[in-house]
Amino acid sequence: MASTVVSSAVSYARENQKRFLEELKNLLRIPSVSTAEEHKDDVRKAAEVVANDLQRIGFEHVEIIPTGGHPLLYADWLHAAGKPTALCYAHYDVQPAEPLDEWHTPPWEPTERNNNIYARGAVDDKGQLWMQLKAFESLFKTGGGKLPINVRVLIEGEEEVGGESIEEYVLKNANTGKLKADFALVTDTELFAPDMPTLCVGLRGLVYTEIEAQGAKTDLHSGVYGGAAPNPLFALVEIISKLKDADGKILIPGFYDDVQKPTDAELKAWERLPFNEEDYRKAEVGSSVLTGEPGYSVLYRTWARPTLEVHGIPGGFVAPGAKTVIPARASAKVSMRLVPNQDPDDILKKYTDFVKKVTPKGIAINIKVHSKGPACVVNTDNKYARASVEAMHEVFGKDTVYIRSGGSIPIVTQFDKDLKIPSIMMGMGLPDDNLHAPNEKFHIPNFYRGIESIIRFFQILGEGK
Amino acid sequence: MASTVVSSAVSYARENQKRFLEELKNLLRIPSVSTAEEHKDDVRKAAEVVANDLQRIGFEHVEIIPTGGHPLLYADWLHAAGKPTALCYAHYDVQPAEPLDEWHTPPWEPTERNNNIYARGAVDDKGQLWMQLKAFESLFKTGGGKLPINVRVLIEGEEEVGGESIEEYVLKNANTGKLKADFALVTDTELFAPDMPTLCVGLRGLVYTEIEAQGAKTDLHSGVYGGAAPNPLFALVEIISKLKDADGKILIPGFYDDVQKPTDAELKAWERLPFNEEDYRKAEVGSSVLTGEPGYSVLYRTWARPTLEVHGIPGGFVAPGAKTVIPARASAKVSMRLVPNQDPDDILKKYTDFVKKVTPKGIAINIKVHSKGPACVVNTDNKYARASVEAMHEVFGKDTVYIRSGGSIPIVTQFDKDLKIPSIMMGMGLPDDNLHAPNEKFHIPNFYRGIESIIRFFQILGEGK
Repeated sequence: MASTVVSSAVSYARENQKRFLEELKNLLRIPSVSTAEEHKDDVRKAAEVVANDLQRIGFEHVEIIPTGGHPLLYADWLHAAGKPTALCYAHYDVQPAEPLDEWHTPPWEPTERNNNIYARGAVDDKGQLWMQLKAFESLFKTGGGKLPINVRVLIEGEEEVGGESIEEYVLKNANTGKLKADFALVTDTELFAPDMPTLCVGLRGLVYTEIEAQGAKTDLHSGVYGGAAPNPLFALVEIISKLKDADGKILIPGFYDDVQKPTDAELKAWERLPFNEEDYRKAEVGSSVLTGEPGYSVLYRTWARPTLEVHGIPGGFVAPGAKTVIPARASAKVSMRLVPNQDPDDILKKYTDFVKKVTPKGIAINIKVHSKGPACVVNTDNKYARASVEAMHEVFGKDTVYIRSGGSIPIVTQFDKDLKIPSIMMGMGLPDDNLHAPNEKFHIPNFYRGIESIIRFFQILGEGK
Repeated sequence: MASTVVSSAVSYARENQKRFLEELKNLLRIPSVSTAEEHKDDVRKAAEVVANDLQRIGFEHVEIIPTGGHPLLYADWLHAAGKPTALCYAHYDVQPAEPLDEWHTPPWEPTERNNNIYARGAVDDKGQLWMQLKAFESLFKTGGGKLPINVRVLIEGEEEVGGESIEEYVLKNANTGKLKADFALVTDTELFAPDMPTLCVGLRGLVYTEIEAQGAKTDLHSGVYGGAAPNPLFALVEIISKLKDADGKILIPGFYDDVQKPTDAELKAWERLPFNEEDYRKAEVGSSVLTGEPGYSVLYRTWARPTLEVHGIPGGFVAPGAKTVIPARASAKVSMRLVPNQDPDDILKKYTDFVKKVTPKGIAINIKVHSKGPACVVNTDNKYARASVEAMHEVFGKDTVYIRSGGSIPIVTQFDKDLKIPSIMMGMGLPDDNLHAPNEKFHIPNFYRGIESIIRFFQILGEGK
C-alpha cells in the first residue's frame, strides 16, 4: 500500500486476514458444481453459507431467491443518503473438477502452497466473491454498522452454466427499482500481470452447443457392419472439421459479417502492455507453438477475434483398451466465442444451418444450446471507473491498465443493456491461476489486496470524489 | 434333424438341453471382460469354470496356462488311433457391456425371452464355446469315455483384446507336436440367416490403434485461451477427417495397393445368397441409409473391402452439461479392417506416416497399437469341410452356404500359417444377435443345433468318411 496512513477498515481487514482465509476455505470445501445434477444440494449449501455471512456482517433484506435452477442471493444496505449505489455481483458456483487425477491436491480440500490457495473455485469465483464480503464486513464493523455508499448485492449460482436465472431476474426487475444502482462491481476477472492493477473493459460472448448425432438404432460390431453402417462419431468428425480450418479461421458462411474491430487507440494500448508471446507460450500454455489466425497478435486473437472450440465428444468406447464398436449415438460439445456486434441468435442460426448442411447422409442430428450471450465493451469515462483506478493505485502503488478478456460474463452485457449502468470489472486473478482446469489457485496476497481495493474504492466514492 | 434315427450321443444331448443351458447361464454370469483391468479376477474365474468342465466330462491333461495376460486353456483326448485330430478353438472372454443403460435386462444376468438367451457373451463366444463342451460331453458319456476322433482343445481369454498370448503359444508350439492336428474347429461365427447352415470361409484382418494427442501442458479455459492454444480434440478431428472421405474411401496413400479381389465365382455365389439390402438396413442397422463405397454391394463392402472406423474419442469434458475447456490431452480409438493380401505391418506404417504428416502444428502425437492381424480366406476342398457340411445337412435339413465375415479371428490366420491346418468355422450366431452391442443374445435352438452339429461332425469323421 502506497499511503502510510490506513483507514480503520483497512486495518481491520489486515488484522483479520487469517480468519478471512479460513472462512474462504470453508466455502471452497463445498463442491458447488452447477452443471452437475448430483451437486444440486452442494450448490444450495454454498448459497446458504454466503447468505448467512451477508446477514451476519450487517446487510439487510438478505434473500435466497428460488429459481428454476440454482438460487440467487440478494441483500442490500441503502442508508447512505445522497451517495452512489453499487450493485455488487459475483458467483458462488464453480466448474467441474475433472480430470481429478491431474490435481496435485484434492480440488475440494483447499491447500496452501507457495502463498497460493489451491482448490476448485479458489479464484473463479469464490475467492473473489469472498473479497467483496470481507471488504463489506471491514467497512460495516469499523463504520458503526454503516457503509460509505449504498450497496446492493446480487450473487448467482449459475454463472458456469449460462446464468439463465439471473438473466430473467434482472430483466424482470429492470424497472421495479429493486436493482436500481449507479454502477456494478464485478469481481470475476484478473490482473494482466502480477502486481499490475487492471480494469477489464471488454468480454467475449459465448454460444455453447452440443451436436447430438444418431446413426444406427443400436451399437454395432465394427467388423460385421463396418462399410455399411453410418458412424455418428465419424460424422461429427466430418462436421466439425468443416467448421474451422487449420489456421483457426471459422468457415461458417457469414460468421465474420458483423465483427467490430477494436479502435486504433485500444490496439495501440495493447501493444504497450508488458506481454511476450514466447513467455506466454512457455509459461502459460506450455505447447510447442501457439495457434490461431495469422496476422493477429495473441491479445487480439484471444480478446477481440471470435473463436470456435470443441470441448468433448461423448459417445462410443472411451474406457482404456479396445472395443470394436460403431456407436449408435455420439455428441460433440462445440462453442463459439463472440466479439462485439456479433448477435448470438444470428450466429446460432448460421451455425445451425451450416451444421445441418454438412451433416453426412445416414445421420440424424439435433443441436442443443447450453448457453448463449453477446460480447460487450464497457465505458470507463465515469467517476466509478476513476475511483476504482485511484483505489487500486493506493493499494498497488501503480497505474491501472485497461484490458479485455477472452472469457464471457453475460451479466455485464445485461447490466449495460437492461439496467443502463457501467460495470467495474476489478478482478484479482492471475493469468496462470488455472481457471476451469486442474490445480486452480488464487494468490493469497491478491485476495487481501482485493479486499483493500474494494474498501478504498467505496470509501473514495463515499467521500464524494 | 432330417434323419429319424439318432445316435445315442444326440439323444443324450437332447435329454440334457435344460441342464446345458443352466450351465451356460452360470458361465454368462461371470463378467469376464478381458479389456478391463478390474475384471481380471472374473476372467480367471471364467477360465476355471471351463477348465473344471473339461476335466469333469472326460478330457485329459487339462491345463490352465498362465500368460502375460489372461490364461489359456488346453486339454486333449488322443486315444482314437488312426483317426483324425481336431484342434478345437473358442474364447471365454467377452466385450465390455457398456453402455449399460441400453440393456433391457442386465448384461450379467442371463435372461430368456422369445427363445433367446440375453447376456453379454451369449453368442460371442461363451454360448458357442459351451456348444463344443456339451457335444464332447455327449460323445464321452455315450461312448464309454471315448471320442470318435482325437481332440485337442485350445481356449483363450484374450480374443477381444487382440489374442496376444495365444499367438505366442501357437508360434512356440508350432513344431513341438503339442498342437499337432489335422484341422481346427472354430465356433465363433454365425449363420447367414436363420435355419441356414453356414461355413465361414473368410475373415477380415484388424489394426486397432489409439492416437494420443497433447497440446497445452494443462487444461485451459476456452474463453481466455481460445484463439492461441492448440486443441488436441480439434486436432484429432482434423486428422481423422483426412483419413476417410464421405463415401467411405480411405485416403491413406497406398492403402489399397495390395487389396485382393474375391474370385468371380465367389462374387457370383454371394449374389445368390438370400440378402436384401433394404431389409438389412431396416432390421439390422436401423439407419435412414446405408453408407460405404459406391459401386460395391453391402456383402462386398463388409466382407471384402477394407474399412476404417473411429470407436471413441476420450478427452475433454464428456459429462452432461457444459464446460468451457480446451483439454491438454485427448485420444482417438481408430481401427482398420483389412482384406486378404493387405499386410498389417505395412498398413500400420502407411497409417502412422500419414497421421504424422497431417497432424496440425502445436500437437504432439503418439500412436498406440491395441491389436493387429491379417485377413484370411480358408480352403474348403478337404474332408473336414465336407464332413461339417454333411453334419449340418443332417441337423438343419439344408445345404450349407459359404460366406465371409467382416469381423476378425486372427487365430484362424495363424492356424493356416503356422500350423498349416484349415479351420472349419462352424458358427451358430444370427445376424441380429447384437454382438459387441447392448442386448447381445443367442437363439436357444441354435445352441442345441450347434451341439448336435458338432456331435455328428465328429461322428462322421470317426466313421472314416
